[in-house]
Amino acid sequence: MLKEWVKAKRPDDAEIDARLEKARLELARRQMAIKEKKLPVLVIMDGWGGAGKGSILGKVIKNLDPRFYKTETLARPNDDELRRPFLYRYFIRIPEGGKFSFFDGSWMGEVTQHKLTGEINDDTYKQQLTSIRRFERTLSDNGYLLVKFFFHISKDEQKKRLSELESDKSTSWRVEKWDRWQNKHYDKCLDIYDNYIEATDQFIAPWYFIDSKNRKWAELQVTEQLVRSIDTALQNAGRAATLLQNTFPFVQMPFVRDIDLSVSISDEDYRKELDELQSELASLHNRIYQKKIPVVIGYEGWDAAGKGGNIKRLTAALDPRGFEVHPIASPEPHEKNRHYLWRFWNRLPKDGHIAIFDRTWYGRVMVERLEGFCTENDWQRAYNEINEFEKELHDWGAVILKFWVQIDKDTQLARFNDRQNTPEKQWKITEEDWRNRKKWDLYEEAIDEMIQKTSTEYAPWYVLESNDKHYARIKALRITTEAIRRALGE
Amino acid sequence: MLKEWVKAKRPDDAEIDARLEKARLELARRQMAIKEKKLPVLVIMDGWGGAGKGSILGKVIKNLDPRFYKTETLARPNDDELRRPFLYRYFIRIPEGGKFSFFDGSWMGEVTQHKLTGEINDDTYKQQLTSIRRFERTLSDNGYLLVKFFFHISKDEQKKRLSELESDKSTSWRVEKWDRWQNKHYDKCLDIYDNYIEATDQFIAPWYFIDSKNRKWAELQVTEQLVRSIDTALQNAGRAATLLQNTFPFVQMPFVRDIDLSVSISDEDYRKELDELQSELASLHNRIYQKKIPVVIGYEGWDAAGKGGNIKRLTAALDPRGFEVHPIASPEPHEKNRHYLWRFWNRLPKDGHIAIFDRTWYGRVMVERLEGFCTENDWQRAYNEINEFEKELHDWGAVILKFWVQIDKDTQLARFNDRQNTPEKQWKITEEDWRNRKKWDLYEEAIDEMIQKTSTEYAPWYVLESNDKHYARIKALRITTEAIRRALGE
Repeated sequence: MLKEWVKAKRPDDAEIDARLEKARLELARRQMAIKEKKLPVLVIMDGWGGAGKGSILGKVIKNLDPRFYKTETLARPNDDELRRPFLYRYFIRIPEGGKFSFFDGSWMGEVTQHKLTGEINDDTYKQQLTSIRRFERTLSDNGYLLVKFFFHISKDEQKKRLSELESDKSTSWRVEKWDRWQNKHYDKCLDIYDNYIEATDQFIAPWYFIDSKNRKWAELQVTEQLVRSIDTALQNAGRAATLLQNTFPFVQMPFVRDIDLSVSISDEDYRKELDELQSELASLHNRIYQKKIPVVIGYEGWDAAGKGGNIKRLTAALDPRGFEVHPIASPEPHEKNRHYLWRFWNRLPKDGHIAIFDRTWYGRVMVERLEGFCTENDWQRAYNEINEFEKELHDWGAVILKFWVQIDKDTQLARFNDRQNTPEKQWKITEEDWRNRKKWDLYEEAIDEMIQKTSTEYAPWYVLESNDKHYARIKALRITTEAIRRALGE
Repeated sequence: MLKEWVKAKRPDDAEIDARLEKARLELARRQMAIKEKKLPVLVIMDGWGGAGKGSILGKVIKNLDPRFYKTETLARPNDDELRRPFLYRYFIRIPEGGKFSFFDGSWMGEVTQHKLTGEINDDTYKQQLTSIRRFERTLSDNGYLLVKFFFHISKDEQKKRLSELESDKSTSWRVEKWDRWQNKHYDKCLDIYDNYIEATDQFIAPWYFIDSKNRKWAELQVTEQLVRSIDTALQNAGRAATLLQNTFPFVQMPFVRDIDLSVSISDEDYRKELDELQSELASLHNRIYQKKIPVVIGYEGWDAAGKGGNIKRLTAALDPRGFEVHPIASPEPHEKNRHYLWRFWNRLPKDGHIAIFDRTWYGRVMVERLEGFCTENDWQRAYNEINEFEKELHDWGAVILKFWVQIDKDTQLARFNDRQNTPEKQWKITEEDWRNRKKWDLYEEAIDEMIQKTSTEYAPWYVLESNDKHYARIKALRITTEAIRRALGE
């Protein structure tokens, strides 16, 4: 695509000036419109070293109100970022509704550079292309406008510019080794860029090539395209996205009503097993830290099912420097203004660490579904989006454990009454719990659909039978220790 | 994708029956909704021979009102279709708004079969994939719902089914040689199908794989997916599509106001050249007929610019059995209910024939733009859609000539007055002509944009300076004969 690209003819300087004045004004106006419609706009600027991405970006933002945009320079990942999934550093930087994010460099730069230097092999490259297609699609499906620019110059032009930059002491620091390497291997780079662009040119987020030989002309192309893209996106606010067919392998799971809740454990066995499993987990925790294996554990379950106590028995065994518990309540305004998975990407552990989520991203297909906090299209799409999210975690090397803590309706009632009648437990029970209880059947339907549609082979649900809380705790500890041992290759 | 596809678990028979009853009812209800919203729905059913496409299709339509759907069985192209561009027979069969078209087999079958039998080479295959991606995108962009099913069965299952069909005299005719070939070369076919599916799996029209071992289960998958897809499409009626960057090479063209209209020809030269060029064209017409070269000529121009007389001088030279003139007025209701290019696909000549369009598909970016008959997004998108359309004609081997017949405003006024004051010419002038004249400047802007954005190297505009009609006629004849000679390799 890039190779066969036909540049538009550059207008004369007078026309460029006139159009630029108009386009800058138009873009400034769009700023108010995207704020009003809460449209999040992510602009990525890729291209050849020396093509002027940074300086064009500087010009484009000059006309914008600094409260409404952020710029990010994405060079190589830092040490902290290298310990997270590949897409982590991009996902956490997506803008909130009503604002721009401009990325100087993007995931394109990272992936193509790693491919060119041989840091990743063909299989990883292909896998990352798939991840990127999914990432861009889920942004678009969730109402993001993603505009992708590639700044193009010829080999000779690049060489000339790099030499100019180097010959001046005040700019020579801007020329990196990589820019020189790119110029020397221009054709090889062009092949990879072309391949990458073809693989990621989707109608929901197509590539726009910018003829960058003349800076004003480049700025004009970028500014006019931004205005056009924003206009299209504003017209399509609230658009429903196509539901895709599942592509992930499932394990077979029972319906929750069919689960035998009569299972239990004696007090004696409980004490004994708790001791044994906790000390095993403590030692495993050390070893995953050394081996840099990340662990992500999510808890979901009925109100009063015993999630809190269960989590406590897990964390009791862990070194506090190596884990974190994230209680998940309603999203904060800055979270609600972003892709619903953003706040979970933001809470991912470093490798070697354990993150425990008390309630999770599955709120999308339970409470958000039932309370109408998102559209039907949103939650129906979410099963696939979540499977894709967990696939990223899996490909990163994470142990993923999802616990569904199950009790029956009578047990819940007994525990609610106990809470109500015991002064020191009263804080645990609210009006909302009683309201949710009235929707038991609707919740049960949503839970079954969730468990059926998200029990992938790489991240299945585990049901914890929790009428006997002791039984559920021992089971959680056993599943956790076994999964970590498997990940350690035992 | 197809190779790694993970089948959903088939529910038990009771559940299938219950869900099927519900889904059939839902689909029947959607029929009313698509009628009301004028949504056109194109369903294509591809897959392995013997997988039961036809019989499932028969079951799905049983619940629909026959006034609102058409079925098409698309086997190999017939002789007439072979003389048109590759996509012709598909484009002319797209449904009108508010109706279903079900295709038993589609462009997928044709392209993959030709690839497998070696009837097309790798380059043609790749080119056809590009054409298909564009075709599917332009349908979606213009408000069509396209649902693509692939009916999947294993090699053994296919073998078993073909044998069963063959062993029964009443069904043995349904097994074609091709089905047997497919089964014998199952893995080779699977490779190509997988490749095709990956190349055409777009988020605007993704593939849905149907596990076809059990017929009721297959019908359920198809019916439920249709309901889901229709619901999404109904929510998105009126959606604006992303504007793509131009990918075609342009020739440089002047703005119409800068054209020198003082050029003229003497009466004597006119007679002489007219004679010579017309007899040359007559002989060229014979030769393109023999060489099966199609010619598509489009005329656009100001009212009273002299299009009619110009066309007459062209057709005077032609054998009436080998050309057709298509006067293009406002679209009929059945045309308006379809993609705006449909009526032009429908009027394409056979190879070896000449089609002359008196006004063309460029109405989209002139009258439809200025009169608000389509949205801004529609006409802005149209430049690329038209360039893609003409690329299809070019790849088919057509000579494409687009004439812009130019006069100045004074000349138009003189001709309008002459028509008004000459009884036998009065039919040529209407109130609308006067209204359009008032919009001269707006038209000029639209014309310039059109000429700049659609003068591709393979189908450039030719300006006919028509203040002197004689001059314009000679120029049209000369351009036409030269272009045909070039196509004949002279």
